[in-house]
Amino acid sequence: MSNKQYSSKNRISVLDTTLRDGAQGRGISFSIDDKLKIVSLLDELGVAFIEAGNPGSNPKDQLFFEKARKLKLKNAQLTAFGSTCRPGEAAMDSALLRSLVNCGTNWVTIFGKSSRYQVEAVLRTTPEENLRMIYDTVSFLVKCGLNVIFDAEHFFDGFMLDSEYSLKCLEAANDAGAAYLVLCDTNGGAMPDDVMEITLSCTEIFSDKIGIHCHNDSGLATACTLSSVKAGATHVQGTMNGIGERCGNTNLCTVLPALALKKGYTCLSGNMNRLAPTARAISDIANLSFDEHQPYVGRDSFAHKAGMHVNAVLKSTDTFESIDPSAVGNERRLLLSEISGRSLLIEKLKTIAPDLNADSAAVNDLLSELKTMEMEGYQFDGAEDSFRLFVLRRLKRMPAFFEVKDFKVISDTGQISSALIKISVDGREEMTAAEGNGPVDALDRALRKALMVFYPCLIDLELDDFKVRVIETGQGTSAKVRVTMESTNGKVRWGTVGVSVNILDASWQALVDSIECQLMYTRGI
Amino acid sequence: MSNKQYSSKNRISVLDTTLRDGAQGRGISFSIDDKLKIVSLLDELGVAFIEAGNPGSNPKDQLFFEKARKLKLKNAQLTAFGSTCRPGEAAMDSALLRSLVNCGTNWVTIFGKSSRYQVEAVLRTTPEENLRMIYDTVSFLVKCGLNVIFDAEHFFDGFMLDSEYSLKCLEAANDAGAAYLVLCDTNGGAMPDDVMEITLSCTEIFSDKIGIHCHNDSGLATACTLSSVKAGATHVQGTMNGIGERCGNTNLCTVLPALALKKGYTCLSGNMNRLAPTARAISDIANLSFDEHQPYVGRDSFAHKAGMHVNAVLKSTDTFESIDPSAVGNERRLLLSEISGRSLLIEKLKTIAPDLNADSAAVNDLLSELKTMEMEGYQFDGAEDSFRLFVLRRLKRMPAFFEVKDFKVISDTGQISSALIKISVDGREEMTAAEGNGPVDALDRALRKALMVFYPCLIDLELDDFKVRVIETGQGTSAKVRVTMESTNGKVRWGTVGVSVNILDASWQALVDSIECQLMYTRGI
Repeated sequence: MSNKQYSSKNRISVLDTTLRDGAQGRGISFSIDDKLKIVSLLDELGVAFIEAGNPGSNPKDQLFFEKARKLKLKNAQLTAFGSTCRPGEAAMDSALLRSLVNCGTNWVTIFGKSSRYQVEAVLRTTPEENLRMIYDTVSFLVKCGLNVIFDAEHFFDGFMLDSEYSLKCLEAANDAGAAYLVLCDTNGGAMPDDVMEITLSCTEIFSDKIGIHCHNDSGLATACTLSSVKAGATHVQGTMNGIGERCGNTNLCTVLPALALKKGYTCLSGNMNRLAPTARAISDIANLSFDEHQPYVGRDSFAHKAGMHVNAVLKSTDTFESIDPSAVGNERRLLLSEISGRSLLIEKLKTIAPDLNADSAAVNDLLSELKTMEMEGYQFDGAEDSFRLFVLRRLKRMPAFFEVKDFKVISDTGQISSALIKISVDGREEMTAAEGNGPVDALDRALRKALMVFYPCLIDLELDDFKVRVIETGQGTSAKVRVTMESTNGKVRWGTVGVSVNILDASWQALVDSIECQLMYTRGI
Repeated sequence: MSNKQYSSKNRISVLDTTLRDGAQGRGISFSIDDKLKIVSLLDELGVAFIEAGNPGSNPKDQLFFEKARKLKLKNAQLTAFGSTCRPGEAAMDSALLRSLVNCGTNWVTIFGKSSRYQVEAVLRTTPEENLRMIYDTVSFLVKCGLNVIFDAEHFFDGFMLDSEYSLKCLEAANDAGAAYLVLCDTNGGAMPDDVMEITLSCTEIFSDKIGIHCHNDSGLATACTLSSVKAGATHVQGTMNGIGERCGNTNLCTVLPALALKKGYTCLSGNMNRLAPTARAISDIANLSFDEHQPYVGRDSFAHKAGMHVNAVLKSTDTFESIDPSAVGNERRLLLSEISGRSLLIEKLKTIAPDLNADSAAVNDLLSELKTMEMEGYQFDGAEDSFRLFVLRRLKRMPAFFEVKDFKVISDTGQISSALIKISVDGREEMTAAEGNGPVDALDRALRKALMVFYPCLIDLELDDFKVRVIETGQGTSAKVRVTMESTNGKVRWGTVGVSVNILDASWQALVDSIECQLMYTRGI
């Protein structure tokens, strides 16, 4: 239809700010390890820029950039974030700007005010001084050899009050050598038609240097981003799963498929079909519950429930789907039907039990047991090894490593809990006790202590990551929890899972799976 | 800016289909009582139409309409939903259409196909027969004295393939006397610019009779609805909180504030400032967890976290807010987090300890203790009440409600754990024990059981939400966890937090805070 207005250049440069603006969301706090993992995932996905933190204002971010320098990225440029120098301060004297220069990235994002009202009401300086700060900051960084993305804060609100001044702010950054001039709808209140017109005013002057950064306070971040690109913006900022302060940022998982699959832009160096698994993995690392209604990447987004819809989809998938789910790495789900999951299961079994095929009776049994477990809250993405053990146990192909005869945990609210345990291995019993930091740790230590008598290889087992997710909210303290663990023996890493209303039970399941994995790896199974 | 194109008529007729299309969402099923309650809430809010069910295909809906007839509605028209007669069937012979006539509403919505492709691929009849079905159905109902809203299914996809045929479908309904012709983006794949152009083609012919019904599969339902209204649509359909199949329907809680507060339309006969409480009440009835990031009505939508933002908002609220939260019945929240500082603390103290000011020595002590706690992993956003208790305890202004003398928890991996506890209140001791689902639940029950002897008001305390977050990964099972709880006494809600390496200890802190909150609310402190 009306695509003529869209930029003739067919490439969008994508900046992911999950680790910076996304981290402003309530309840979100990334450890340095979390951040390194997310950087690798985003690089694989193929975004152009990963804005990963503010080394000037946050010592944790400084440490992160030190470690991140050692990552070998295939597609993305790591980008540090900071603000212009302060009123009355020369850029070269700013400690914050120096920390940007020293953090080792080739790209930096600098935000500065571009609304006359904000300059006067919040910054409390003159409009001219703000222009000086922008120019001085960008040119200082450019002279230091950095590429600069200039985020023009409050651009749209500012433009509506005093367009001339807002454009002068862009001009200052542009004259100083900024690579991109990014129009920010900081309050998320702009409407798509306004964004279109205002972006057009900017692309007329600055042609293909314009970028767009939206917030979702009006539920319109995706639409505003599309409008801006239609008006010539070539650079798009957002976060995975749309996380961010208040109502979040532009959701890259929503806007990238629209740009790539509906409007024909190239957005990613990697593959769009990594999008859904990447979105889910990042949500897991952030310990957020994944929004399954999310466009394109949510589990429900291609789920068909009404009988009529399911029939129609079986006749022809495009009757109730606007894109092919595999294009974003998702899959169609026909609810209340046996069809879903089957092809995936068969695919997975190829490595675990290569003798089984689509016609094996065991496949049906596994499928129906899996469905029950999924209903109960098990989730095997990120816990593939528990899935493997589940299959081997059901097929009775697991070696009997040990049997637990009894255990008890005793705890108060002090730091130290105690556990006692009795196990048997090949008919030989071993009873022992241990203390730990809280009941789960006590249990872990007691179990390993007892098993170590028989399996010295367990000394190499390290539990690296331990996550707890409450599955059903609204049940108070008796809610069901899912525990996931990540373990390593220094060579291999594996993930396991447990589900129960009792956190000790859920942890126990994940722990036993992890120990059995190590025993199997040691035996070369 | 570009509002000229918007309809000069300033009123939008709003149809809420939470109870019909919304009920297609996964995990949603309304009882008759639920539906009656929701009808009253929507009527109070002031929508024009409440599409409440399909009496022809669902006996429960038939019973609902019998009861609903007795409701005295102030603003809304109750509307029944059904489809056209079938291929080869006369409208007057359709049992489904008769049940619509008999259900007692003055308005009905009829959906029919308006895409030639869908008619042939799914309905498997001729394009001419489909036009006959539309005309015959609408004119039969109009002759029976009903007002008919015609939902043109798959309109946008159909229009792009064969616009002439799609317009003929509207014409058939219009000629037969339909009151509104509603363009449906059934698959949710349309882009706002296409919706604008296609709606314009329709309003040119049918002027102010055009309505819009979108799905959110591309995250653009709000934007498409706004585009359609800009092109002259005067009737808007959607659901509260955007519930519905796959990614949901147009969210009325998002689109109505945009239309009313940003574009100047009158959408509701009631008050827009009922929107947030109504959205929450309906979510509660549907037993869904409320999306706190939702634009306008979510708790986070006016929550400010980053230190700089908080400073700016304290200077002037419109610096980081695009509307006044009270306009939609919501309120501003200033979040406490590691990023923010002194000015926020002082702001918060205004209500907790109004006698303190920026110069009080106590403020410095509190600030440095807060920093230590935040380093340890405490996070008070979402646990504002634990913050209040923290301040009152440090200032020695907390009543001594109870003292814990001893407790022990005993657990294995079975579902049931046991706890014993000894407390004292004003020198009187109480010892008791309880079982629960896992150790945290056992502890919760034992503590409340013991305290109930002294404080019967605790019977109203309900723990609603319970979350566990592992703070430092890489520590295995001895990692530190943060537990947050949300509680209510039916009138007020509050959030509390605890941090420890022992999950029991962290839960215990959050639990004790929650109980003390309820005791304080009861005493009116």
